[in-house]
Amino acid sequence: MSKITRRAALAGVAGAGAASGLQPSASAQAAAPAAARQAAGFYRYKIGDYEITAINDGVRQDKLETSPYRNAKLEEVQAALEATFLPKNQMSIVFNQALVNTGSKLVLLDTGNGPGRGPTVGMLPANLAAAGVDPKTIDTIVISHFHGDHIGGLRTADGQLAFPNAEIKVPAREWAYWMDDGNMSRAPEGSNLANNHRNVRRIFAGLGDKVTKYEWGAEVGPGITAMDTNGHTPGHTSFVVASGPGKLIVQSDVTAHVALLFLRNPEWHAGGDMDGPQAVRTRRKLYDMVATDRILLAGYHLPFPAVGYIEKDGSSYRFVPAAWSPVL
Amino acid sequence: MSKITRRAALAGVAGAGAASGLQPSASAQAAAPAAARQAAGFYRYKIGDYEITAINDGVRQDKLETSPYRNAKLEEVQAALEATFLPKNQMSIVFNQALVNTGSKLVLLDTGNGPGRGPTVGMLPANLAAAGVDPKTIDTIVISHFHGDHIGGLRTADGQLAFPNAEIKVPAREWAYWMDDGNMSRAPEGSNLANNHRNVRRIFAGLGDKVTKYEWGAEVGPGITAMDTNGHTPGHTSFVVASGPGKLIVQSDVTAHVALLFLRNPEWHAGGDMDGPQAVRTRRKLYDMVATDRILLAGYHLPFPAVGYIEKDGSSYRFVPAAWSPVL
Repeated sequence: MSKITRRAALAGVAGAGAASGLQPSASAQAAAPAAARQAAGFYRYKIGDYEITAINDGVRQDKLETSPYRNAKLEEVQAALEATFLPKNQMSIVFNQALVNTGSKLVLLDTGNGPGRGPTVGMLPANLAAAGVDPKTIDTIVISHFHGDHIGGLRTADGQLAFPNAEIKVPAREWAYWMDDGNMSRAPEGSNLANNHRNVRRIFAGLGDKVTKYEWGAEVGPGITAMDTNGHTPGHTSFVVASGPGKLIVQSDVTAHVALLFLRNPEWHAGGDMDGPQAVRTRRKLYDMVATDRILLAGYHLPFPAVGYIEKDGSSYRFVPAAWSPVL
Repeated sequence: MSKITRRAALAGVAGAGAASGLQPSASAQAAAPAAARQAAGFYRYKIGDYEITAINDGVRQDKLETSPYRNAKLEEVQAALEATFLPKNQMSIVFNQALVNTGSKLVLLDTGNGPGRGPTVGMLPANLAAAGVDPKTIDTIVISHFHGDHIGGLRTADGQLAFPNAEIKVPAREWAYWMDDGNMSRAPEGSNLANNHRNVRRIFAGLGDKVTKYEWGAEVGPGITAMDTNGHTPGHTSFVVASGPGKLIVQSDVTAHVALLFLRNPEWHAGGDMDGPQAVRTRRKLYDMVATDRILLAGYHLPFPAVGYIEKDGSSYRFVPAAWSPVL
């Protein structure tokens, strides 16, 4: 086409068969095999003197057949996917951890899915390796809450500790909730809740002396403070990372599942939001604050590299990814 | 802080000195040296059967002291930067090429800055290497227009061809304009225009038999059609890449410089927009079309990986980056 016209752009290439009429270049190859390999999922940025590495743990691609949200209809979910320029028939749930290098400590916030949860998740170890980080050098693991996609990566496939030298810090309220035999016994047999109780006990079995429980408000690493963002789970925690004038809020699962959808629909309850109304209150409170004060936000389930700003948009929100910087 | 409060989040970590009170982990290191290395700048996605690799050529970071736009005041530029969550005192101009693997041909659209233009640009060769692409295997280079950040990468530091086996395709109108001795003689001595004339002749010197001139509407590679988007330069060209149901428009410099600012301010004229009003008409026509038809767009000066959608927002536009997929 010689001009910008809708017809031309939509019609595709007139006479694509003409490809065979192209002059072969001197270097024409028999074929150009596809690389079929994605770039490694890590990205670095600075917060004050701290170096943050966003690490991707992969993606779970679920077919969309019924609404995964308790208070949204399938058609509403499809409309929200379309409005967000995501495929309408699929839920792509991505997982991103943040590694904080404070200059004195390497602190990893959450650990991803771990092994055995499918071929396209559990990529944290590979992406850490691509980023040049040896799991043995990690000093501290801080867990936000006890869902499997956050604690699964504490163990390797053979049950060993994935980060053998790290102290493990967990929210005291989260530990209290999931380790309570009464809570476990009340979870309906076969439910996700019951399965999660069992998974928590499997992961933490025998780790008593490695695990430290922290309270909201505590400093869980140099310049890293635990913040109450309960609702998603009883002990769900976010983190404020502060260095000099720099500030980052790591929101964990304040928006879970396909996080972008919850920005447009902050009232929705994801399956994993154990207290839906409280999760909504937490979400609005945090987003109203970071939008007003323009605080940089890292989100576990936002698209990699999962760091950016929140804009208020009427009664909902918009995620503005931070511009990727090719240099540090 | 134990609750989400503005005061707490803004105040930073109360008693950061308490860091020294942390229990040292068993593995405590003396220090955690910063990696100080950004991830490689490449990203892959599919358009129908084609594999596209977005490649980053780096970033030029200019101090913002006067408005770089002919019809915008410094304060307006600063306000637009702030609204876009970019630093107010700096213009970060990023450069991104698209490599199209059609299955039979490797086609590179534009070549970046090339050597000698500063330490943070000219990263195309390194990022191609990271993506596993040998420059010798590239069959075709298609040039959108003759500014230095698009043609500079045709040559290595010692003046050799950076892509020795590639046919080079250039817009016939662009060639005619820049190779015209009258146009060159009319460019004011010492101007960017005069410098660009000289640079064009340096780059293309002795390449007569390697260079093919194409017309708008021509197929410049299998399924890749040249589209008239003049205004930025007289022969400025964008590309429609079509494979099966997949479609991508590679917009080149329809928005140049800090492209995000032109989405909010489509009427602005960048220094490089040789015919400002025509550049504005082209911009609006293209963006109105891709917004209405939800066509995926790749932009040379958009933040890496520089691929996404355009939303209409009143009389301006918004860029919605495509969600990064960890898998292909």
